[in-house]
Amino acid sequence: MINVCITGGTGYTAGELLRILLRHPAVNIESVVSATSAGMSVAEMHRDLLGETDLVFSDRFCRPDVIFLCLGHGLSRAFLEENDIPEHCRIIDLGNDFRNDPLFGERAFVFGLCELNRELIRKAENVANPGCFATTIMLALLPLAAKNLLTDEIHVHAITGSTGAGKKPGETTHFSYRDNNISVYKPFTHQHLTEIGNTLVSAGNKELPQINFVPMRGDFTRGIFASVYTKWNEAISETEAIELYKSFYAPSPFVFVSDKPVNMKEVVNTNKGLLHIEFHNGYIHITSIIDNLVKGASGQAVQNMNLMFGLEESTGLRLKGSAF
Amino acid sequence: MINVCITGGTGYTAGELLRILLRHPAVNIESVVSATSAGMSVAEMHRDLLGETDLVFSDRFCRPDVIFLCLGHGLSRAFLEENDIPEHCRIIDLGNDFRNDPLFGERAFVFGLCELNRELIRKAENVANPGCFATTIMLALLPLAAKNLLTDEIHVHAITGSTGAGKKPGETTHFSYRDNNISVYKPFTHQHLTEIGNTLVSAGNKELPQINFVPMRGDFTRGIFASVYTKWNEAISETEAIELYKSFYAPSPFVFVSDKPVNMKEVVNTNKGLLHIEFHNGYIHITSIIDNLVKGASGQAVQNMNLMFGLEESTGLRLKGSAF
Amino acid sequence: MINVCITGGTGYTAGELLRILLRHPAVNIESVVSATSAGMSVAEMHRDLLGETDLVFSDRFCRPDVIFLCLGHGLSRAFLEENDIPEHCRIIDLGNDFRNDPLFGERAFVFGLCELNRELIRKAENVANPGCFATTIMLALLPLAAKNLLTDEIHVHAITGSTGAGKKPGETTHFSYRDNNISVYKPFTHQHLTEIGNTLVSAGNKELPQINFVPMRGDFTRGIFASVYTKWNEAISETEAIELYKSFYAPSPFVFVSDKPVNMKEVVNTNKGLLHIEFHNGYIHITSIIDNLVKGASGQAVQNMNLMFGLEESTGLRLKGSAF
Amino acid sequence: MINVCITGGTGYTAGELLRILLRHPAVNIESVVSATSAGMSVAEMHRDLLGETDLVFSDRFCRPDVIFLCLGHGLSRAFLEENDIPEHCRIIDLGNDFRNDPLFGERAFVFGLCELNRELIRKAENVANPGCFATTIMLALLPLAAKNLLTDEIHVHAITGSTGAGKKPGETTHFSYRDNNISVYKPFTHQHLTEIGNTLVSAGNKELPQINFVPMRGDFTRGIFASVYTKWNEAISETEAIELYKSFYAPSPFVFVSDKPVNMKEVVNTNKGLLHIEFHNGYIHITSIIDNLVKGASGQAVQNMNLMFGLEESTGLRLKGSAF
Repeated sequence: MINVCITGGTGYTAGELLRILLRHPAVNIESVVSATSAGMSVAEMHRDLLGETDLVFSDRFCRPDVIFLCLGHGLSRAFLEENDIPEHCRIIDLGNDFRNDPLFGERAFVFGLCELNRELIRKAENVANPGCFATTIMLALLPLAAKNLLTDEIHVHAITGSTGAGKKPGETTHFSYRDNNISVYKPFTHQHLTEIGNTLVSAGNKELPQINFVPMRGDFTRGIFASVYTKWNEAISETEAIELYKSFYAPSPFVFVSDKPVNMKEVVNTNKGLLHIEFHNGYIHITSIIDNLVKGASGQAVQNMNLMFGLEESTGLRLKGSAF
Repeated sequence: MINVCITGGTGYTAGELLRILLRHPAVNIESVVSATSAGMSVAEMHRDLLGETDLVFSDRFCRPDVIFLCLGHGLSRAFLEENDIPEHCRIIDLGNDFRNDPLFGERAFVFGLCELNRELIRKAENVANPGCFATTIMLALLPLAAKNLLTDEIHVHAITGSTGAGKKPGETTHFSYRDNNISVYKPFTHQHLTEIGNTLVSAGNKELPQINFVPMRGDFTRGIFASVYTKWNEAISETEAIELYKSFYAPSPFVFVSDKPVNMKEVVNTNKGLLHIEFHNGYIHITSIIDNLVKGASGQAVQNMNLMFGLEESTGLRLKGSAF
Repeated sequence: MINVCITGGTGYTAGELLRILLRHPAVNIESVVSATSAGMSVAEMHRDLLGETDLVFSDRFCRPDVIFLCLGHGLSRAFLEENDIPEHCRIIDLGNDFRNDPLFGERAFVFGLCELNRELIRKAENVANPGCFATTIMLALLPLAAKNLLTDEIHVHAITGSTGAGKKPGETTHFSYRDNNISVYKPFTHQHLTEIGNTLVSAGNKELPQINFVPMRGDFTRGIFASVYTKWNEAISETEAIELYKSFYAPSPFVFVSDKPVNMKEVVNTNKGLLHIEFHNGYIHITSIIDNLVKGASGQAVQNMNLMFGLEESTGLRLKGSAF
Repeated sequence: MINVCITGGTGYTAGELLRILLRHPAVNIESVVSATSAGMSVAEMHRDLLGETDLVFSDRFCRPDVIFLCLGHGLSRAFLEENDIPEHCRIIDLGNDFRNDPLFGERAFVFGLCELNRELIRKAENVANPGCFATTIMLALLPLAAKNLLTDEIHVHAITGSTGAGKKPGETTHFSYRDNNISVYKPFTHQHLTEIGNTLVSAGNKELPQINFVPMRGDFTRGIFASVYTKWNEAISETEAIELYKSFYAPSPFVFVSDKPVNMKEVVNTNKGLLHIEFHNGYIHITSIIDNLVKGASGQAVQNMNLMFGLEESTGLRLKGSAF
């Protein structure tokens, strides 16, 4: 059994990790660390876990084989500075601290996009889990990047559910504001652009393409829907392009190309990514969908853990979708 | 023109008052007072008013003919103590300070349920505007109370939209929590029970009936849906009962009895109240719907103002419903 | 492995059965029968199953060990008349055909409320799966019925998600109507009242209590929230009552009593039922929540199958909740 | 008073017209024609109108001054062929029959985008009311087109509420499908592209620019949110561009440029259009919002009527927004 510690245990991604790991056949959750709620029952905070666990938040970890950092962006580095992590202990960071800046002392973080870095992750001691928007968009573009086919600007609109904004209530996650509403935020400047660009180059695209990315706030809780298009240079045929996508993702247990248009709820509450591809106006148009809390965060983190510990990649992750 | 001052100008009920009063043919908004936002443009706070007003929040009022108190429950009394209100100036309180305790020095507050106290309100200097749940439930019961027909316990479930909880974000108004969710709060103990009971007696019911009231949080923004039933003692026939309701509300421009079942969106964004009545299992069952921000708060406050100033009751209140 | 046939394969409960059974460790789905879609890929209909199954709808079954009837209310009896079901083959009916009228030729149907009839179900050849509203309400009342403590009328309001109305679009499931809306239907006359009443008596309540049940349509897709109360006769103390509930459900892997108020999303996408109990105004007030498609339909059907085939009751049913 | 006839009276746009015109100070609704519901009370169909009108659907019109055609796309032409419209009677078509093909016998239809064709509409006998997506997108681009500044491709994503799909229930407007969901339809091929392109040229853009338009289905009922960008050629400065927008829309009572980002609910239930402009990556980015049923259909139709009959453009259209 893999002994797991989860830090930042009261947040949304920690809650989702718990939901997954409590059902994982090869995991023992040894500690759920919370600076603010030590001593409290885990199921009292994550109320849906009532009847599923007797875990209690603690203020320290013991001897975990892996620590999941669910601390919020920019807090992972400080945590590692303040805590003495045993050398053998692996780290999976769900924050953005090590995605673009992968070194911390002796520790080097592999970018944990399983569909790209599967072999590197198998050998990794430390993994930086990708961002949710970044995952959705990279899945839409990886096969083209791998063939150096991204030669023009990329146009992206992507809509996210409210859980991506975390647990702390605020103006734009207030129900009276968000319900039946749509808005744009950080247009063309979202912080995930860096990891997307770096990844496309690392996948094989020689030039870093310009990405015009308009993120939107959707009035739903789970899921990201991305609509992506870029000039289609006809280096390969349309049929070959779709074949390229299918063969690229053939080894991946969670990413599929749909022959029909996709709607977001086809993946909600699962670790899947679905893609649909069409050609119009001289563009290739890709729609890409994931659940931001699962494939976009905690599910992908467990997928990384599975790879790092030599387990079958999908162990504990074949989740029943909610569909509706 | 009636010179109006609105206090507590940044909140939801003040915003809704502004939406209504900016279109009211007999009103001049002389000041919108806010302790925290003086100097700020009103349309910058209530963003939907862009292009509709140049008003700026101020920290004082001048010489209004009427002040609307939109301060939050329990704060109206303190406001009146700290501010010198001109003697001639009328007051309409949207808080709960004077509903059950109607005296403040020389000022006496009339309970502003227009359908019951129309004549009293016409002569009133001060009005305590009813609560939103209370309005919905009282409209369902007034005709029976007026005939002393409430002789048994009353059973009420009522579901409210999120705007009833106000502007300040919190756990149960967080979109990630509230969306697609239902919950109960303050079962059998909601603070509106007092004003409901008092009103039924003041309407003519000799005994104060026991009211079993389960309030629920709905996953919508506007509206209250109440399902109310009580033993049907057959003092009058079913047909007579429905006729009683229709004749009781005949003088009211906003309350109607529907022969068909009602759904909540039939009244959203209007000042209307709709009722539907059926008889089952020896009970009379009444469903009652209003928009909590309009008939349940700011619309009813304007209806009261119209009566107090000798205007036609519906002036400025024949609002287009949103229907969807 | 249990060889399973699902009939009525294109509907919502069949889809949910597929989601569950495709992950069930002891099940082989041998056929998914559809009169209208034979030859079509199952994942083309239930789009979220893309990448999870290669099943194709067929127009017949082979030699299943169990048939799940997902045909719609009133159609199961006709199906059994028209089809020759092998004698050894067990039947689990998700319709309402055999809940109150349990005989069909030689076959007798046990009412499949696991928390009440666990031992009978273990030996059953045929099971009538309870209705979704009925399940929610019965879970709220079973412990009291078992002690003959239901001595007065029962008051119930329960709100259901749209999936309870099935796949066929209609006026009250039209998004433009249903979104942000609430309405009542079949007040005091819902067809589940019969099975609720019968079950309470069969659980041990000597008299059939009157149940005043107001069903409501909620603007969410999954889940039922029931608010139930009845006079508290103080035959036992409040503490004893809560203890009674906890001990009654102690053998049940999916039903729990929460010490804190519950909200519906605590059980969505799981097979759980959660209860919360308070005492007010001389009443015991129980809130009860389930997912209508899982515990209220397909999950409970699998729970019944597990019992019928000697498996651990929760096999394949410890589903990750969606929580948000 | 203007005598008005509404045809296709049972649909969504007819209902919205009724909501507006029943409050219009210069209108008398003489007939609401419905082929299928003649004899039925209008308020029985459009339930929110209970208490607001005694109108009854009829199967013919009398002597209207103007007919609004709310028949569904492609049916207006047939209606005019089958019915003898008095020569003096004006026509406003809410369908798409005459937007791109403006002639019908002697009658010529002016494209009813008030912000562009105000003076033409004042003299028009017949008006083709613009489409809802088209209105949103044209408002975002008109000022640039008027200065011939659209010199490169235009990129548009726009999300629409469900009421845009009309009253007839279907798979993609089924609540169980649509709630908490997002999907794309007709990418790059939506039928409004023609009227958008024609209008931009007619506004003054010499070349017809390529428009890459991805329409999306949102999980809300009212509203369209469009995100539009095109290369910014710096022919004028950014400040000048914003000034250009403000001066272009200065004569328009309903279109405003917001200095802050907009969210869709700022215009829901109003006839307003709001725009917000930013510059990034060498692009000008415009967000544009309207209510699809009001400014995108029935409100704009009334705005056209006001202009055609010499009324103040905003008569009867200063509607209270719903804001939440």
